[in-house]
Amino acid sequence: MVNVEHIGIAVKNFSEANALYFKLLGVEPYKTEFVESEAVNTSFFKVGGTKIELLEGTTPDSAISKFIEKRGEGIHHIAFEVEDILVEMERLRSEGFTLLNESPKKGADNKLVCFVHPKSANGVLIELTQEIK
Amino acid sequence: MVNVEHIGIAVKNFSEANALYFKLLGVEPYKTEFVESEAVNTSFFKVGGTKIELLEGTTPDSAISKFIEKRGEGIHHIAFEVEDILVEMERLRSEGFTLLNESPKKGADNKLVCFVHPKSANGVLIELTQEIK
Repeated sequence: MVNVEHIGIAVKNFSEANALYFKLLGVEPYKTEFVESEAVNTSFFKVGGTKIELLEGTTPDSAISKFIEKRGEGIHHIAFEVEDILVEMERLRSEGFTLLNESPKKGADNKLVCFVHPKSANGVLIELTQEIK
Repeated sequence: MVNVEHIGIAVKNFSEANALYFKLLGVEPYKTEFVESEAVNTSFFKVGGTKIELLEGTTPDSAISKFIEKRGEGIHHIAFEVEDILVEMERLRSEGFTLLNESPKKGADNKLVCFVHPKSANGVLIELTQEIK
């Protein structure tokens, strides 16, 4: 794993949360993006070498809406940047981790992503992410 | 906020979790430390410019043990490095955030720390951390 690429936080109200994290972090989001395939609004704040991503579900059956219904708002996942997502997926499979995606999918912010099951990693939802070049 | 200094993960079994995160991250913890005042075992893994901290409560009334009892294992907090913790605490208070500590306290890894109430930040427990020089 090269770096913590971002930390994803599930929020109920996108505009209120963006205003709050602006006050907390002292920077505006450098990007907001609607990811239709996941039914989420996303915004990204740069903090040093990593990012905070806010996520709001745009439909009741979005994974983010379901997460909030079950556990409330809060930290949703940690994304680790990897150099080669296919190599890393194969390595983790061979180490016994359960992957939630058979093959990488297109995520926000021009990335290929794959999720690792939280049961594999002490309740932490982990995202592997590789920039699309 | 200068950087994400670390991400804290609450775990039930310290040695098993350390072995698992070694497999996941591909690095050994560079440090383990028992923090008596908080009744926690901690270990730190470097990942790029930030760190993953595993936390195991050593008594049933440790904040970490209580967190796990209530919510299960998982991400416990995000720690942001700040240049001057007193200045940052005053700034956040004036912005309406609720701080959990009146004044900074001594944390793991040679730091002064202060926590921000999760109700202030969309369910995220935030730690401010400044290195003791």
